[in-house]
Amino acid sequence: MDLDQAGGDAIMSGTLYGVGVGPGDPDLLTLKAVKVIAAAAVVAYPAAEGMESLARAIAAPHIPAGKTEIAIVTPMVPGKFPANDVYDDYAKEIAAHLSAGNDVAILCEGDPFLYGSFMYLFLRLAGDHPTQVVPGVSSLAACAAVAGAPLVSRNQVLTVIPGPLDEADLEARLLNSEAAAIMKVGRHLPKVRAVIEKLGRLDRAQYVERATMDEQVVLPLAEAPDTAPYFSMILVRSPEDVETFGEQA
Amino acid sequence: MDLDQAGGDAIMSGTLYGVGVGPGDPDLLTLKAVKVIAAAAVVAYPAAEGMESLARAIAAPHIPAGKTEIAIVTPMVPGKFPANDVYDDYAKEIAAHLSAGNDVAILCEGDPFLYGSFMYLFLRLAGDHPTQVVPGVSSLAACAAVAGAPLVSRNQVLTVIPGPLDEADLEARLLNSEAAAIMKVGRHLPKVRAVIEKLGRLDRAQYVERATMDEQVVLPLAEAPDTAPYFSMILVRSPEDVETFGEQA
Repeated sequence: MDLDQAGGDAIMSGTLYGVGVGPGDPDLLTLKAVKVIAAAAVVAYPAAEGMESLARAIAAPHIPAGKTEIAIVTPMVPGKFPANDVYDDYAKEIAAHLSAGNDVAILCEGDPFLYGSFMYLFLRLAGDHPTQVVPGVSSLAACAAVAGAPLVSRNQVLTVIPGPLDEADLEARLLNSEAAAIMKVGRHLPKVRAVIEKLGRLDRAQYVERATMDEQVVLPLAEAPDTAPYFSMILVRSPEDVETFGEQA
Repeated sequence: MDLDQAGGDAIMSGTLYGVGVGPGDPDLLTLKAVKVIAAAAVVAYPAAEGMESLARAIAAPHIPAGKTEIAIVTPMVPGKFPANDVYDDYAKEIAAHLSAGNDVAILCEGDPFLYGSFMYLFLRLAGDHPTQVVPGVSSLAACAAVAGAPLVSRNQVLTVIPGPLDEADLEARLLNSEAAAIMKVGRHLPKVRAVIEKLGRLDRAQYVERATMDEQVVLPLAEAPDTAPYFSMILVRSPEDVETFGEQA
């Protein structure tokens, strides 16, 4: 329900915003994201246990001083998605702010609805509170931009594949794709590279790490390090695009 | 080559910028896009013959008065990509500005490297002039945001499919996908819908038209009109996400 349409004396719920803050460069926030963050009473963001919140670091220049902040701290267990009870507790805390009539902006790296952890809170809160998603620049768009070649052009198909898939599944997915983006690469890099090499596609694959950040790395996949951060991606370009735009942009 | 590194008296080339202006809402430009447009001497944008330029309309509030503007007018021939000679001529005009040391910002709907027409000028100019792409919010992210459900979550695969593919190819691609986004739907809507219905996936498909614009339409695919604008999309959610987030968000 929209606050503007509220009648009577009841305290109306605040709005839950899922705010995409883009891939890393603070200038890649949208004007809308900046406005929503400025206006919200509460700003929340994911933070892996013991680590700085990347989403907060990206948005930092745009978070006014004195804002109520909630770090959504999730334990890091490789290969596991965070436990439900962690999100249940944070959802209760955020619901209390919303029910008091305050807007809550949840910051999300990239775009909230492309593999975003926002889904865990969206699932728990959107049924009871007005919810809006502010789309953001995805890491897909950012990696293609810094790699210097289209993700996909004309009438080609693009397959977006999570790196944690097992080897056989990865191979089957890649065999069915011309252009592909493998996301969430991290510790899966050696496995993903082996599959791409087996398929003879190493010469059309690029590795991108921390796109648009100061520490950005862009390399032919063949030259990528064996250990990659979670925020890394492999782009496999279509044969047609390699012919058009050159082997490595 | 970067202007900062330029030595001697030679006039150095200006920079060619491919600037993603996002899906429609002028507040979904990034801060970087606004800065690049403000600083560039020349602003160019695609415009189908006889039509207003959508990219310019989106960015209009952020284009300072008195800027040199170039409308890249392409003839509309359904099913055909614009002829090379059209882009050859515009590339020459833009190269003249760059060679005179002026920056040129080419506005692109959504993200420049996701099916963007920017590729035609990128291909002709990036070899001779410093080039940067400013990634933008894609229509993919925008459609998911207004449709109110994740594009893809956890370790699911997302397939991005152009609507102009023929029926057999569309069917094969969809059979190999859990979650899919069919872009550039337009006049292909009846064909795409027939394939999705044949595969028994109509109940997990949504139709989105002009996402984030005033005239935005979001409907279950079963209720979508037979005639759709070029800027329309069909989202087919994964069975897993439909179970998690409900049949229609």
